[in-house]
Amino acid sequence: MLYYGAAYYTEYLPAGRTDADMQMMRDAGLNVIRIAESTWATYEPREGEFDFTPVAHVLDKATEYGLQVIIGTPTYAIPAWLQLKCPSVMADTHQGRRPYGARQIMDITDPDYLFYSERIIRKLMEVVRGYDCVIGFQLDNETKHYDTCSQEVQKRFVASLKEKYGSTDKLNDAFGLNYWSNRIGSWDEFPDVRGTINASLGCAYAAFQRQLVTEFLQWQADIVREYAKPNQFVTHNFDFEWRGYSFGVQPDVDHNKASKCLTMAGCDIYHPTQDHLTGREIAFCGDITRCLKHAPYLVLETEAQGFPQWTPYPNQLRLQAFSHIASGARGVMYWHWHSLHNAFETYWKGLLSHDLEANPTYDEAATVGADFAKLSDEICGLQKHNRAAMLVSNTALSAVNAFRIPTCMPFSGKNYNDMLRPLYDACYDLNLELDIIFEDADLSAYELLIVPCLYAAADELIARLREYVQEGGHLLATFKTGFTDENVRVRAEKQPAGLTDVFGCTYSQFTIPEGVTLCGGSVVSDWMELLEADTAEAVENYQHPQWGNYAAVTRNAFGQGTATYLGCMPDASYLRDLITYEAKSAGLDLPEYAFPLVCKRGIQGGKRVTFLLNYSQKAQQLNWDGGDGTELLSDAAILSGAALEIAPWDFIIIKEANVCVGL
Amino acid sequence: MLYYGAAYYTEYLPAGRTDADMQMMRDAGLNVIRIAESTWATYEPREGEFDFTPVAHVLDKATEYGLQVIIGTPTYAIPAWLQLKCPSVMADTHQGRRPYGARQIMDITDPDYLFYSERIIRKLMEVVRGYDCVIGFQLDNETKHYDTCSQEVQKRFVASLKEKYGSTDKLNDAFGLNYWSNRIGSWDEFPDVRGTINASLGCAYAAFQRQLVTEFLQWQADIVREYAKPNQFVTHNFDFEWRGYSFGVQPDVDHNKASKCLTMAGCDIYHPTQDHLTGREIAFCGDITRCLKHAPYLVLETEAQGFPQWTPYPNQLRLQAFSHIASGARGVMYWHWHSLHNAFETYWKGLLSHDLEANPTYDEAATVGADFAKLSDEICGLQKHNRAAMLVSNTALSAVNAFRIPTCMPFSGKNYNDMLRPLYDACYDLNLELDIIFEDADLSAYELLIVPCLYAAADELIARLREYVQEGGHLLATFKTGFTDENVRVRAEKQPAGLTDVFGCTYSQFTIPEGVTLCGGSVVSDWMELLEADTAEAVENYQHPQWGNYAAVTRNAFGQGTATYLGCMPDASYLRDLITYEAKSAGLDLPEYAFPLVCKRGIQGGKRVTFLLNYSQKAQQLNWDGGDGTELLSDAAILSGAALEIAPWDFIIIKEANVCVGL
Amino acid sequence: MLYYGAAYYTEYLPAGRTDADMQMMRDAGLNVIRIAESTWATYEPREGEFDFTPVAHVLDKATEYGLQVIIGTPTYAIPAWLQLKCPSVMADTHQGRRPYGARQIMDITDPDYLFYSERIIRKLMEVVRGYDCVIGFQLDNETKHYDTCSQEVQKRFVASLKEKYGSTDKLNDAFGLNYWSNRIGSWDEFPDVRGTINASLGCAYAAFQRQLVTEFLQWQADIVREYAKPNQFVTHNFDFEWRGYSFGVQPDVDHNKASKCLTMAGCDIYHPTQDHLTGREIAFCGDITRCLKHAPYLVLETEAQGFPQWTPYPNQLRLQAFSHIASGARGVMYWHWHSLHNAFETYWKGLLSHDLEANPTYDEAATVGADFAKLSDEICGLQKHNRAAMLVSNTALSAVNAFRIPTCMPFSGKNYNDMLRPLYDACYDLNLELDIIFEDADLSAYELLIVPCLYAAADELIARLREYVQEGGHLLATFKTGFTDENVRVRAEKQPAGLTDVFGCTYSQFTIPEGVTLCGGSVVSDWMELLEADTAEAVENYQHPQWGNYAAVTRNAFGQGTATYLGCMPDASYLRDLITYEAKSAGLDLPEYAFPLVCKRGIQGGKRVTFLLNYSQKAQQLNWDGGDGTELLSDAAILSGAALEIAPWDFIIIKEANVCVGL
Repeated sequence: MLYYGAAYYTEYLPAGRTDADMQMMRDAGLNVIRIAESTWATYEPREGEFDFTPVAHVLDKATEYGLQVIIGTPTYAIPAWLQLKCPSVMADTHQGRRPYGARQIMDITDPDYLFYSERIIRKLMEVVRGYDCVIGFQLDNETKHYDTCSQEVQKRFVASLKEKYGSTDKLNDAFGLNYWSNRIGSWDEFPDVRGTINASLGCAYAAFQRQLVTEFLQWQADIVREYAKPNQFVTHNFDFEWRGYSFGVQPDVDHNKASKCLTMAGCDIYHPTQDHLTGREIAFCGDITRCLKHAPYLVLETEAQGFPQWTPYPNQLRLQAFSHIASGARGVMYWHWHSLHNAFETYWKGLLSHDLEANPTYDEAATVGADFAKLSDEICGLQKHNRAAMLVSNTALSAVNAFRIPTCMPFSGKNYNDMLRPLYDACYDLNLELDIIFEDADLSAYELLIVPCLYAAADELIARLREYVQEGGHLLATFKTGFTDENVRVRAEKQPAGLTDVFGCTYSQFTIPEGVTLCGGSVVSDWMELLEADTAEAVENYQHPQWGNYAAVTRNAFGQGTATYLGCMPDASYLRDLITYEAKSAGLDLPEYAFPLVCKRGIQGGKRVTFLLNYSQKAQQLNWDGGDGTELLSDAAILSGAALEIAPWDFIIIKEANVCVGL
Repeated sequence: MLYYGAAYYTEYLPAGRTDADMQMMRDAGLNVIRIAESTWATYEPREGEFDFTPVAHVLDKATEYGLQVIIGTPTYAIPAWLQLKCPSVMADTHQGRRPYGARQIMDITDPDYLFYSERIIRKLMEVVRGYDCVIGFQLDNETKHYDTCSQEVQKRFVASLKEKYGSTDKLNDAFGLNYWSNRIGSWDEFPDVRGTINASLGCAYAAFQRQLVTEFLQWQADIVREYAKPNQFVTHNFDFEWRGYSFGVQPDVDHNKASKCLTMAGCDIYHPTQDHLTGREIAFCGDITRCLKHAPYLVLETEAQGFPQWTPYPNQLRLQAFSHIASGARGVMYWHWHSLHNAFETYWKGLLSHDLEANPTYDEAATVGADFAKLSDEICGLQKHNRAAMLVSNTALSAVNAFRIPTCMPFSGKNYNDMLRPLYDACYDLNLELDIIFEDADLSAYELLIVPCLYAAADELIARLREYVQEGGHLLATFKTGFTDENVRVRAEKQPAGLTDVFGCTYSQFTIPEGVTLCGGSVVSDWMELLEADTAEAVENYQHPQWGNYAAVTRNAFGQGTATYLGCMPDASYLRDLITYEAKSAGLDLPEYAFPLVCKRGIQGGKRVTFLLNYSQKAQQLNWDGGDGTELLSDAAILSGAALEIAPWDFIIIKEANVCVGL
Repeated sequence: MLYYGAAYYTEYLPAGRTDADMQMMRDAGLNVIRIAESTWATYEPREGEFDFTPVAHVLDKATEYGLQVIIGTPTYAIPAWLQLKCPSVMADTHQGRRPYGARQIMDITDPDYLFYSERIIRKLMEVVRGYDCVIGFQLDNETKHYDTCSQEVQKRFVASLKEKYGSTDKLNDAFGLNYWSNRIGSWDEFPDVRGTINASLGCAYAAFQRQLVTEFLQWQADIVREYAKPNQFVTHNFDFEWRGYSFGVQPDVDHNKASKCLTMAGCDIYHPTQDHLTGREIAFCGDITRCLKHAPYLVLETEAQGFPQWTPYPNQLRLQAFSHIASGARGVMYWHWHSLHNAFETYWKGLLSHDLEANPTYDEAATVGADFAKLSDEICGLQKHNRAAMLVSNTALSAVNAFRIPTCMPFSGKNYNDMLRPLYDACYDLNLELDIIFEDADLSAYELLIVPCLYAAADELIARLREYVQEGGHLLATFKTGFTDENVRVRAEKQPAGLTDVFGCTYSQFTIPEGVTLCGGSVVSDWMELLEADTAEAVENYQHPQWGNYAAVTRNAFGQGTATYLGCMPDASYLRDLITYEAKSAGLDLPEYAFPLVCKRGIQGGKRVTFLLNYSQKAQQLNWDGGDGTELLSDAAILSGAALEIAPWDFIIIKEANVCVGL
């Protein structure tokens, strides 16, 4: 069954609303609510005084109305009394000690915080363990490290360095600490890391902070598992680099490692709508989350009405919901049921407006609920078998962000995700579906591997990229790949370091393009490496009075495969052409149609399901390129080759009749 | 007699200037100086050592030269010794403890500050009480709360909440403190308010801080009154939201409440000049200040030469001075007499440049002085009888500013005054003179009431708006009116909450306009509510592919009156058309001419006085639409219907011959 | 011999590189390296443990390879152990105590810092004193005061004020401290200077901070001299106001005073390249540095590859190197030999890229090295005899910056160097070579003196300007000159104060130009004074409806000379016309050709050497306007009047055959 639901906060609502709310949920086809993760102070208003009445009330009512419930552990927002009693629970960051008030500003390693967190989790679990309507648990909420830099955390960080490097001399050497006299004389003489200007040290600390998140979630998972039944899942709502919406790889969490303790992956996805709705963030964040377990995942939060500028046009709420399913989601939950009357997020609206009555968005949700119910058997548990992947890396992310592009002075310019998203978006626009994988993934599963800005990478990863091509893979990597080792030490060898024979090209100089184009007129921006093709073919040279002898793109046959190196950032049109070429070289077929007509595919019940989604104000036409099948919403038969039209902001779902072979 | 004067700082001047200065003042027709408010350290150079020689000297000389004097209490800038002896006098703000140096950065509730302030005030009053030239007292200077957040102030704030709400449960409920676990368990466990993200709590603290200003001025007024004679006024120079000039309603002071302790209202008005001189700020700030007492007021500070970019064009100084009088001012005083040779405001120039000699601006001031003297009997004590008013509210201001428009995330976007000023400016441009009134005003005095963004309002005020229309008033209110209660809790009902029948329309959704216009092409910006007309007429629908079914403006007959609701921010041209329509509906006649030809009117000696002011580089023509009368500057007779021309940056003043009836 | 070299950090390099590096240096003609200034922690890894092995190794190898060495004292970047042992070594600034990590953030007056600095300097000197390859010493590195505001420093500042003014009354009067009650009651009651808003006090503190730099360098020089041999120079690498490159007069150091302790002046010059390479910064910074000793100077740092956006076009590295020599430099050294693999400046590239192999930039350097070797006898020790000078002043700089232009509120708007550079650049573009001199220079050496924004100046300097014109000098001064005394007290007299008869004009008002032009259409920006010509000729009036009666530029005969006053900032074209006129009036000949064809001249071996440099992508033609001579690079004979062509980014050097007379 597809989950369809919303976060539900009885604690924030006017009294006596529960029956009315749950009836409205049922009417709209909602079947799951998420509760409890935000309101520790309600359950423990004074230290040691517990009152779970609101939780029990909602669980009782949910049982009555047939709603399923996800329980969140209430640890991401702490009570005022805890901060007053134990001031050290507040994170001490690069900007100093955080004041009480907002959420997610505590030190997630603080012993007092952990003590009281464990107690409230256990108390809550005791209350909810007896309810059959509880289908799973969410650990905390969008956990990050909140830049904790306490003395204790720094001690642990230094201890981890000592364990890894043994002697300070080895550390000094690995991190280049001779520079500007930053050399460490003994493990006891380690300066506060907050002042460092050494990118190796800074990135090591960032990685250590991400590890704190992994450990924290594991710690919560262990507690929750003591109470959870086998059929109850344990999940977490990962979020993404935030640009006013979900934009890119999360810098502060290693999703790959942190998800190990979960039984089901989950995430929060927010995105622009109205004329700016493209579905890109739905796909990008979904691809990351799906690949954490290579299994269906939960969209634990996404916008209903959201920010004022996101009030959805008619049809958009439907389009969004089915786009998540088409990416492999197991369900879609809104943040949140009702719009808030107080506090901070008053203008981040839920399904209901502040008047708590039906409205156009709620009415449209009811059609989603009905269609989810109708189609669950046909599309739930969609399996994706993508043959192309994009490799992402938190190590490379931190390292790129330490230097930024293009000003290349720290703390300004574009970052890792700015470089990555144009490549992802080009694939999306071409309807080339991707897996997004981390460094430790099995690369051999893919015919085409796209590697953006893998700026920092261990020798072992470089070797696996080499092996990937050697064994027949098709690799498309960009500028900066391989430039430094995992400690952000630039490799003192020809670039792309360790891969010059794989790519068949080298460079030792680079610059910021100004007035530089490629042959077809594509403007080069952000960064350009002055490539010299060796065994490779120079696919493109820079068009410029001074740099015209250098290649911008090279392609090389190596072993059984091919390796293409993109030495600069061209415009979107060029990226699409390049990826089209690479995909075809790798034997991947792309549809004839492209964005705003988006195609997503998967297997359900052994048969191929195709979602055709129109992300525009204009109707879109296509000739059906699959086999005979059925359009699931209308139950209409679709013959191969049929001429189809999809209305603005609308979609169709075709399930083919024949069992799919070979995937 | 019209006051004409300047702030005078003998303490800042080269020695021996007093006779020369006062002779130059007399030559220019200046008749009043303001002294003493800035130079506590001169009068008490070391703790307990007093020396009022400069004050006595100036008072003696003023007596000799026939100048009147306003005495300011010297408490807004504290001596260095006070800060060194009592560090806690410095305000502890959201940004931490302020360093010594600037003015207006002390904690106005600090006991040490109050002790030493009272002593210096009393010492000063003893010195000046015997001088007949002293006509009044100014309390402090542009007093605000300087964001004081000391522990003591916060304790008083919590005590005030306890007194108002009794139990923390009631407070938690009223402010929605369950959100993000901010619930208060006991009055003793109140976190530092500086970290709060709760808008209800933040706005309550802002209101409390404004109340501190009211109390401080009352405290000073009580001290001063012990010494003041009955014929000496007590005033204060209120200032306004600052945008490099006086822009809008002051967020940090409740002018309405703070002015209760005064016998005459006063203010400081600074505005752009040269090509940017419009008179809008002169009118806006004047309308606020006049309505505090509904009586003539003092412009205690306005620019002479001011900032370098304000060096006035020929004629502008005259135009400005008479514009103040036309708004109902009792006098105009420059800040300041001489330009400062040191310190900080060297480039905020006075009537004299740094060479302390006559200059074009001084020469033009002399013509003002002469005309003030000539016309005092004809225009001094002008009474205004405006039939339209604009309702402003510090409560709504804080609440709007907590969420801002249009990004609707805190701390960015446009604020209350950004929404208010376009409405005010449209009235000004149409020559519709307004009273600007606060929440407790008697609404029944007005035929037309304009209510911009009354976002937070108590039930009682909503009820009075209803009654106003019911009884025959004409109400024009904008988007966001009525949205929350006085605690910034969104009303959980159909919007405009409590007024849906009055306006005959409702809405439950809103968005940020992008590419949206009104029928005549007016671009909609900032905010748009998706209005559905019920009993109202939909005056305008949005022009947009998706939002075209929703109304932008509705008009409704209700009771004896009419209520128009403006659901968005249209452009200035549309606002003028709308207000013209509303004014006519309310039976108010507007002149045929509009900005840059500005008309201001009042009654003096029972007869109507009309100021016709040309705010442009081009001569303006009009046909005189009043009765027969006299142009006061030229003594020329003016017949009804006469063709008049007003030179660039010039003005005429017509007093009609017949006694005015009916106002 | 011309020096050609690079900073060399064996401490930052992979092990075992020295031989390879030095062979590559020799191959490229490099003959000098600079070492040791950055790596105190390497030499003293733990307190009191010294290890100068890397230094000795490099000196041994340099001896072997015939390289000369400059030794830097390693005090600008402190070891972590020093900060942990003595936290007070970190500068306590306007922004609070600086955290450890970056360089140049210590308190250069802290006793602990000085104790340990002296010890490491002496230890180093003992190691290096025996090496003949050491040709000189560099004190510290780009020393500034790092805004130290420690209590101890402030005590010394107050003591210096007490010594200068004697009584607080005199200080209060000089600084105008009555303003806003800032009066000082006693020397013991001096508030923390960091909060001051008094520009006189703030500028006095800035001057005091600059004096700390002078004292610090003198202290280091005294130590170093105990060890240095007579033939070893003592230098320092001064830097400049930084705008992402070397832009203007250094605000934080008085180069004039600080250079007294040196035997050879030195500096660091960084500048844009590629299409933005103009040579302006090379000339500007070189002119300042050369005039410190009026002798050849060292360019101790300049970019090789530098920032990514600076990767030089072919030929640019050569053009740059010879441009320095043409300005009078004794040598050119790159920062730095090899690109860094770690830390912070990874993207500030040296001669070698990270692969440590030859590359196009290195290859081009080799041609420079060869030509330096070939031409040393012909061009080394170039003497400049400029007849025009620009007068700059740190006192005026601080004062202008305290108020800024044009907003004229502190802390925004344009600063002193923004006003100065357009004038300098106009001279540069016209090939009018300048000396840049400080207040105490002998003005009589110059036919033309350009004085930009001499906003704060003592009476004595004003008198010398008067005397300069009186005795026949040609003075061109701009707006704001003379406005305040050396304490930033505006002179209470007609402006330009003290010089109204010299300039034959006065003004008492000024404004910010908006839509104002000069006669030929030049747009006036930033600032305009409303000049009234007295004895002067009004060369230009403002073109504006209101300001048209005021002069913008006046010219006056006074005594034996002439004085031109520029009351506003016109555009570059007008500035060039004005300076052309002034130069001709002063009897100075300008070449017929102008930027991008740049001409620099000097005398070597009694004969005139002319560098003709093409700063553009296009070949430039000229007719040789000198006498018969030889083009030194090609050894070609050049006859007077010959038609010459200079290739893009190329240059020629002509040495005339006849001995130069008269200079």
